[in-house]
Amino acid sequence: MLRVALFGAGRIGQVHARSIVESGEAELAWVCDPIEEAASTLAGKYGAKWSPAPGDAIDDKSVDAVLIASATSTHTDLMRDAVLAGKKVLCEKPIDLDMAKIDATWEAIKGSAPFVMLGFNRRFDPSFREVNARVKAGDIGRLRALRVTSRDPQGPPAAYLAVSGGMFRDMTIHDFDMARYFLGQVTEVSAVASHNNDPVFMGANDHAQAMLTLKSADGVLCTIVNSRTCAYGYDQRLEAFGDLGSLEAGNMTATTVRASNAKETEAAGPVLNFFLQRYMPAYKAEFAEFVAAIKEDREPVVGFADGRAALVLAEAAIESVATGKVVTVTRG
Amino acid sequence: MLRVALFGAGRIGQVHARSIVESGEAELAWVCDPIEEAASTLAGKYGAKWSPAPGDAIDDKSVDAVLIASATSTHTDLMRDAVLAGKKVLCEKPIDLDMAKIDATWEAIKGSAPFVMLGFNRRFDPSFREVNARVKAGDIGRLRALRVTSRDPQGPPAAYLAVSGGMFRDMTIHDFDMARYFLGQVTEVSAVASHNNDPVFMGANDHAQAMLTLKSADGVLCTIVNSRTCAYGYDQRLEAFGDLGSLEAGNMTATTVRASNAKETEAAGPVLNFFLQRYMPAYKAEFAEFVAAIKEDREPVVGFADGRAALVLAEAAIESVATGKVVTVTRG
Amino acid sequence: MLRVALFGAGRIGQVHARSIVESGEAELAWVCDPIEEAASTLAGKYGAKWSPAPGDAIDDKSVDAVLIASATSTHTDLMRDAVLAGKKVLCEKPIDLDMAKIDATWEAIKGSAPFVMLGFNRRFDPSFREVNARVKAGDIGRLRALRVTSRDPQGPPAAYLAVSGGMFRDMTIHDFDMARYFLGQVTEVSAVASHNNDPVFMGANDHAQAMLTLKSADGVLCTIVNSRTCAYGYDQRLEAFGDLGSLEAGNMTATTVRASNAKETEAAGPVLNFFLQRYMPAYKAEFAEFVAAIKEDREPVVGFADGRAALVLAEAAIESVATGKVVTVTRG
Amino acid sequence: MLRVALFGAGRIGQVHARSIVESGEAELAWVCDPIEEAASTLAGKYGAKWSPAPGDAIDDKSVDAVLIASATSTHTDLMRDAVLAGKKVLCEKPIDLDMAKIDATWEAIKGSAPFVMLGFNRRFDPSFREVNARVKAGDIGRLRALRVTSRDPQGPPAAYLAVSGGMFRDMTIHDFDMARYFLGQVTEVSAVASHNNDPVFMGANDHAQAMLTLKSADGVLCTIVNSRTCAYGYDQRLEAFGDLGSLEAGNMTATTVRASNAKETEAAGPVLNFFLQRYMPAYKAEFAEFVAAIKEDREPVVGFADGRAALVLAEAAIESVATGKVVTVTRG
Repeated sequence: MLRVALFGAGRIGQVHARSIVESGEAELAWVCDPIEEAASTLAGKYGAKWSPAPGDAIDDKSVDAVLIASATSTHTDLMRDAVLAGKKVLCEKPIDLDMAKIDATWEAIKGSAPFVMLGFNRRFDPSFREVNARVKAGDIGRLRALRVTSRDPQGPPAAYLAVSGGMFRDMTIHDFDMARYFLGQVTEVSAVASHNNDPVFMGANDHAQAMLTLKSADGVLCTIVNSRTCAYGYDQRLEAFGDLGSLEAGNMTATTVRASNAKETEAAGPVLNFFLQRYMPAYKAEFAEFVAAIKEDREPVVGFADGRAALVLAEAAIESVATGKVVTVTRG
Repeated sequence: MLRVALFGAGRIGQVHARSIVESGEAELAWVCDPIEEAASTLAGKYGAKWSPAPGDAIDDKSVDAVLIASATSTHTDLMRDAVLAGKKVLCEKPIDLDMAKIDATWEAIKGSAPFVMLGFNRRFDPSFREVNARVKAGDIGRLRALRVTSRDPQGPPAAYLAVSGGMFRDMTIHDFDMARYFLGQVTEVSAVASHNNDPVFMGANDHAQAMLTLKSADGVLCTIVNSRTCAYGYDQRLEAFGDLGSLEAGNMTATTVRASNAKETEAAGPVLNFFLQRYMPAYKAEFAEFVAAIKEDREPVVGFADGRAALVLAEAAIESVATGKVVTVTRG
Repeated sequence: MLRVALFGAGRIGQVHARSIVESGEAELAWVCDPIEEAASTLAGKYGAKWSPAPGDAIDDKSVDAVLIASATSTHTDLMRDAVLAGKKVLCEKPIDLDMAKIDATWEAIKGSAPFVMLGFNRRFDPSFREVNARVKAGDIGRLRALRVTSRDPQGPPAAYLAVSGGMFRDMTIHDFDMARYFLGQVTEVSAVASHNNDPVFMGANDHAQAMLTLKSADGVLCTIVNSRTCAYGYDQRLEAFGDLGSLEAGNMTATTVRASNAKETEAAGPVLNFFLQRYMPAYKAEFAEFVAAIKEDREPVVGFADGRAALVLAEAAIESVATGKVVTVTRG
Repeated sequence: MLRVALFGAGRIGQVHARSIVESGEAELAWVCDPIEEAASTLAGKYGAKWSPAPGDAIDDKSVDAVLIASATSTHTDLMRDAVLAGKKVLCEKPIDLDMAKIDATWEAIKGSAPFVMLGFNRRFDPSFREVNARVKAGDIGRLRALRVTSRDPQGPPAAYLAVSGGMFRDMTIHDFDMARYFLGQVTEVSAVASHNNDPVFMGANDHAQAMLTLKSADGVLCTIVNSRTCAYGYDQRLEAFGDLGSLEAGNMTATTVRASNAKETEAAGPVLNFFLQRYMPAYKAEFAEFVAAIKEDREPVVGFADGRAALVLAEAAIESVATGKVVTVTRG
């Protein structure tokens, strides 16, 4: 059994606690969170130790791995300390919002045989994963184009917006990783955005929606469609298009029920509306990959470099909106 | 060009007039209807002669074929006269409601090399036809079961009910023919029906809905689900189930639009609601088969015997409801 | 926490063990199975006691409830002993294959304030449950007809067939309960079946497929379509049809992926193929209802009388096939 | 009856001939085509006069309207001559590939009360039209984003490519018009394209695929996804996304048949593969609008200015690919 310390007892931390416990391969050893009540409650639920200080867990030699699900600004320090203490690390995205801090962190850990997996959960969604696997198996011939639709059900509060790093670093970051999952190295990014005349986004100098176009080194194109709000729920779809056909992953509903009446037919229910519902199987599969990579003594399928590369694309998108130009990237 | 006389200028007659004219292979020579205004109006539209008396068209030696779309009670006399005059006949279903009249008609025409096609239009629906062809091509292996759903959008008026011959002879007759299209000879019929406590159907001693089970000589089963009313339109579906899989033909909508909102997702529009919309391509294909069989000097794919056999099944269903027994049939 | 003894450590017993443990409301106190290794392995996995003798658990005063998932022939004795010992009972379907034994059991327990829930898991399937709830809420107006499709992916082995009690008691029993879930009291049953010329079913004097028609006291019709095999997986669908429209529950696939290529478009993956995959959420919801009914000191939503009534319908179906008649039932 | 002269007897001319004749509101008076056999054959089919010289029809005072479906390079001269002769004009897209010629044509006709309708047939597709009407009716609240998917089944021959004006002027022109149909005035265009390393497109200095992003004056975004080839047929889809939901128009298949087997389920047939099949109802509705606008003495819903504006967007896209910049447009 892998002994895991969890940093962060908030909403996403609770999801990871459940994934750890239900994995059957790991035990939750510590829960650390500066909010003591959050840490003790979550730890108590699963019989783990707790502390407001992550250092307590890092100093515990019986701990094999840490899962960083704390505030973004704390990620790099915790990652560095954990790696230097010999722990395996699974870190929530993004590594950080600041490229310099990311690069400094790498400098600090690169000599310590770092095992760092990045929490891009969508790579582990069963439907997206199947599409990726079938593309790689040649089902649609050579991949030519990818379409990613990613719309959040509800916009974030203004307070969150202020520290989020902006739509591209905070929300589109998942889609940049999805693009890289299919396209490999991305070399061009162009982005157009709109604040929809919404004072919340105008005030934060941020976007209500965006459309992005990416291009890979070998000419595969990708479009990303983002919206901060979506009336019908959490819209998470993907289309891979190749010479022999296409593969599409659609939205999920809670049941298979379809209603017909005098006005309409085959109406499905609302789309699964909350990322925990929609991606719970993905979080479980992500943790399973973390355990498997450790056991098999190999690199995780998505690592530090992937976390950095997604941020490179986010910064390119920011530049593209600012300049009205296609931005060429070299490490995306 | 085949010169065709049309008997009956009502709703279904108008459909056939259009099929004839748009076929590119035939011309409408006569329209005959006891209601002179109906006959003259329809004839005028397409430049045909008209008469209240069908005999005028039957006596016209230049007429090659007649299409009988008049009142059911007139079918057998017109068919007999036309066959004896050497005309090819396309007759709307049913041949008649009375088996004795049907058999007497056959006796009268059988020596005259009769060419009689029955207007079971659903056999020519592109979707049902594709299912049938793929079953015959072996796509689902050996056929084991058929499911026919047939619901009318709105119940008939009481005046029509009184002369309709009852649900099984009037409405289910199409489904009996569909069953025979897939199963060949049907040997057992059982039927259960309900008047839904509706005074219209109770007064007419008829049914608001029914469920029937048929069995073929080699053990293929078929269920037919009927309703006189259907809130979401004209429900016309079919499922063929075999050892290797299934083929389903679904309902049709006017457009491909799907709507999503806060309450529901992927809602399609109403089902095509009127038999002329739903089956117009089928009527055209039916007439094309009529022309093709004549040209190729072969029997039509659905003939007099099929019209009779469907009525045999209707009578078996009537008996089954009356007796509460499975009824064995010998010529269905 | 409810302390539960589980009788039966086979495939379905393992499912229930998981439902108990993951419910968060109960603990697995005992696992009893005549096959000692099965009992000890399953008990060991969850830290429960084990015994080959169910009496050991029934004698344990700390046990609140028993879950009977053992061989069918053992159900009634275990149920009686458990009830007389004051335990709450959740019993897998069927109660028994013999009506006399069922009635004798009831006589034996009826004076002891029996709390007996029957394991008709499909009532707890989220999709079927939603359809039922929306019918009751009036979404489709007055219910007129129900269609149940229930096809197993693969036929049972001949050895199982010999002791199964036949298709209607063993397989259709679920569909009879589903019919009762929607129609309430069923008053007429007619059934037609086919052995598909398959020597396995012919040898067992059993059916490869069947179609059944049921009618309720107030004229609601229901058709059940059954097959022992289904090439595309475990086909479990339902349609409720009413005056204002319909609600359909479809099959489930592992992902939402749809493939398009030169031959076909929008092809989904295979249907969830195994009852444990398909109905795992239903088993969990079933156990949650068991716990809730106990806590709220009320009758479970599906009880002893429902188990008996489903068997009444199975026997009516057997009689209908034998006699070729619609069978009237009085306690279905 | 409107008397119409048709210029061009090629594939698209034949489609229009049929629309004219089947409209019931017009008669085909002339067919003009430099290829005499083509002109005489098509004219003969419908009893029209024919000539290699369009001037013959323009000089015919009994002609009310002309339908220009000849080679693109002939459009402007024919349009000018017809307008100056007092004819109503329905002109196939594009007006011309050269903006200067377009503007000169307008100068020449603007004083003659020109009635010029542009043949953007997709505006008349029943599904796209329904989406547009429902957006305008407020079904999805304020429109925020549009997604247009437009993929041709097969790439054009190299000879055609050489004179086509390039992908954006030739193929995307339809999508630019679709964007304007929903967004009104478009103010920004950015485009990314790929030749897919295909020597045909590389040789023609053209694109195998492209992704474009448009923005309207009030911040509505639009993405266009184009491909010259598509394995599963003619992919023509659209999604309108607004504050209250979305409306999607999907692809069309010849039948409603869905197949299930051991490998996959609910597989539909191929998408309608040829623009004549896919858009035949649109061509008919387009001609009906032409007739209606003339009868009602009003401007057609899509006119000369729309033809020009779509070309403005095409030129902006060309510039965007060349410069890697978002291009601002003032009359799109």
